[in-house]
Amino acid sequence: MATPLDPTALGFLLAENRRMPMHVGGLQLYRKPPDAGRNYVRDLFESMRDTIDIAPLFLKRPYRSIKTAGQWVWVEDDQFDIDHHVRHSALPKPGRVRELFELCSRLHSTRLATERPLWEWHLIEGLRDGRIAMYTKLHHSLVDGIAAMRLLQSIVSSDPDERDMPAPWAKRPPRSKIGKAQEAAEHATAGEALSALKTALGISADAAGIPKALVQTLNRSLRNETSTLALFAPNTILNREITASRRFAAQDWPLERIRAIGKATGTTLNDVVLAMCSGAMRTYLSELDALPETSLIAMVPVGLHAKARHAGTGGNAVGSIMVKLGTDLEDPLDRLLLIHASMLDGKQALAQMTPLQIQAMSAVGQVPAILPTLLGMTNMVRPAYNLVISNVPGPRTTQYFNGAEMLGTYPLSVPIDGNALNITCNSYAEQMAFGLTGCRRTVPHLQRILTYLDDEISALEKVAGV
Amino acid sequence: MATPLDPTALGFLLAENRRMPMHVGGLQLYRKPPDAGRNYVRDLFESMRDTIDIAPLFLKRPYRSIKTAGQWVWVEDDQFDIDHHVRHSALPKPGRVRELFELCSRLHSTRLATERPLWEWHLIEGLRDGRIAMYTKLHHSLVDGIAAMRLLQSIVSSDPDERDMPAPWAKRPPRSKIGKAQEAAEHATAGEALSALKTALGISADAAGIPKALVQTLNRSLRNETSTLALFAPNTILNREITASRRFAAQDWPLERIRAIGKATGTTLNDVVLAMCSGAMRTYLSELDALPETSLIAMVPVGLHAKARHAGTGGNAVGSIMVKLGTDLEDPLDRLLLIHASMLDGKQALAQMTPLQIQAMSAVGQVPAILPTLLGMTNMVRPAYNLVISNVPGPRTTQYFNGAEMLGTYPLSVPIDGNALNITCNSYAEQMAFGLTGCRRTVPHLQRILTYLDDEISALEKVAGV
Repeated sequence: MATPLDPTALGFLLAENRRMPMHVGGLQLYRKPPDAGRNYVRDLFESMRDTIDIAPLFLKRPYRSIKTAGQWVWVEDDQFDIDHHVRHSALPKPGRVRELFELCSRLHSTRLATERPLWEWHLIEGLRDGRIAMYTKLHHSLVDGIAAMRLLQSIVSSDPDERDMPAPWAKRPPRSKIGKAQEAAEHATAGEALSALKTALGISADAAGIPKALVQTLNRSLRNETSTLALFAPNTILNREITASRRFAAQDWPLERIRAIGKATGTTLNDVVLAMCSGAMRTYLSELDALPETSLIAMVPVGLHAKARHAGTGGNAVGSIMVKLGTDLEDPLDRLLLIHASMLDGKQALAQMTPLQIQAMSAVGQVPAILPTLLGMTNMVRPAYNLVISNVPGPRTTQYFNGAEMLGTYPLSVPIDGNALNITCNSYAEQMAFGLTGCRRTVPHLQRILTYLDDEISALEKVAGV
Repeated sequence: MATPLDPTALGFLLAENRRMPMHVGGLQLYRKPPDAGRNYVRDLFESMRDTIDIAPLFLKRPYRSIKTAGQWVWVEDDQFDIDHHVRHSALPKPGRVRELFELCSRLHSTRLATERPLWEWHLIEGLRDGRIAMYTKLHHSLVDGIAAMRLLQSIVSSDPDERDMPAPWAKRPPRSKIGKAQEAAEHATAGEALSALKTALGISADAAGIPKALVQTLNRSLRNETSTLALFAPNTILNREITASRRFAAQDWPLERIRAIGKATGTTLNDVVLAMCSGAMRTYLSELDALPETSLIAMVPVGLHAKARHAGTGGNAVGSIMVKLGTDLEDPLDRLLLIHASMLDGKQALAQMTPLQIQAMSAVGQVPAILPTLLGMTNMVRPAYNLVISNVPGPRTTQYFNGAEMLGTYPLSVPIDGNALNITCNSYAEQMAFGLTGCRRTVPHLQRILTYLDDEISALEKVAGV
């Protein structure tokens, strides 16, 4: 039953420490179905907990011993205890979204125990409007963000009348939609891109091999003037060592508003999302008297479907573009147009790269959280980038889980030393959710960024004339 | 402002790891005052959180750097963030004690962040009978169990009409009752006993000095046939390596019932408490088919007031007796009488020890949690003892906090490698509380021990004829 951990999974496991847990999280809000009875939440919890047959992805735990010659392997947890993983929580009164974020911040701050499968699921009651929430925590060594999102999508249904839908961790027939997603998630971090990289660069499967190979790769990229990695970011308060506690905040804006700005200015949806972040970060850092004179640089993971397939690395490859956010510019429109140009430059640079370089970029894109730690980038005088902003598309239509309507889905990501703030966006139905995860100490009053995002979308609408 | 950590505090800090957080906890149950309004809990939470002036004990955090020459020192947290420490939580429905224990188990499983003062306080609402709970978490390097109990006692009042009582962490005048308790708690781990030991044995203040000196001490005790440490305990499932997650359960029994058994059998209150634990552990281990043929040995910390004072080590000294629990005996009365004899033997052995030996014992008693780790006792073929059972006296009369009646107080302690279960008892008013803290994996179904404790008090009443 023992399978060796692939290099990425191993990297996440080894890079983890008390101050930097390496798990991603997802928060979903649901409206109870119209026919929900008095014990709906309790019954839902019990039906999830009483899952007998667990999918392999949710049963495996990392293990090393003399018997495995000191290598980390995945083994099945032979004392699997579902009560440890499936948890029921509640919010104190008044049960606002504020209390929900506070609870999620705490849950996201604690480390998963490696003696057990690396996941937790919390059903949360006590929102004053009767909505229920689910917070899921998955170790990054288990799945990457995109595979996690696909797994989520495979679990919900567009049919409001579908019932008896099993828990996400229930074992499914391998050929079913969910069975396939579980299978894909299980192999996602093994990652075709990384496997190819491993072969191309001759990375050995042991941990020591990763940093060296990635240092070479990164050095090569940094030396290349046209590279998407060749920008230098200013030093900011976001690029410090972090502490163990997290703050999470999230909010949706209508996709329609974002699209309208893009249409009126000739920019993309993603450009407008980045411009919202840019304006919000400018205001946030100004308020703290910490705005650098030169522009913030965001690391933006982008899909590389066509190119990656061409390079034989499969369809899941992700590259990264270093985007100038224009936080030194006063005018919201100037910022948006700079971002648009910067994204185009980055995409062109990617297009000119050799398959080997793209494979390397894909690896960088897949492992942003472990790279700086492994490379010691936190000690660089100037950081390579100031924050990670990613935008992961989600379901396009309204989804249901056992009749409960999913009202929103918000990602929680992984702040690390040198990158104390992470913004992850998820589109869902007609909304765009912004999830902010930061170190509670290094990023003070993180929740204020939500207000500034809201100010910025209005400012962009004004300059775009919509 | 920087004060070096004393050796015990340092020991707790260094012995801590992901699987073994070194904090103690306290759970108190309160009944709301008769005049409590609709927003009572929220108002109470806010008044606690809005404390401006914080006592030094609750402001200091451990710190080391090149500036401190690599030594750990206490410094004041200059970014103190009370929202991180003072937390509001709620129980999911149905809000039974079971849900409360589940939440406390989770809260007790997570580690305190060393970037901040080493404490948390949780106000918990959602018990279906309207009671409220408070869970406090304090790092063992900050206070020992007895100092924590004294601090608690100094905070509550026997006057149900007293209001405007400040938070436990509020700074008080140094000459006030609470000011003195805070001061005492702050210096408790510095411990006169340990200071004396340090001087007597020439322990240097650095970490490396502790294990060596304690190994010498322990070896000396183990070589002494009359020593209270000279027993050998059988190997049991409790004496294994532990995992990171905890299970906590607690219950009260009337002191009157325990006293009546003692009176009828010529034994002490503490003997009966130990006999209850003995019978419960016998049943528990039998059910798991894991009862050893020879008796379990409990490490029982005892007060050494007179003797310790005589030895010039102050009034807080604690020694330890290794007590045969008689779990190999079938009859509850036989077990009680064996425990009684074993306690007398141990006390006599302590009485015959030299001041130096008592000082050493005091050190052992103060640092049970770090000893096996530092000494590598987890690798011994036979453990020195099977579990720690301590009995800390609490307030004798009903106590109130801002008019809320304290209904019970339950201690959460520190399981460690080789000692997966810890039983701590607290007397309060007319009750004796048993708090069980165990590794969730190594001590399966820990909560069943409560049932067996209840069975055992009835069995003892029967054999004692009361």
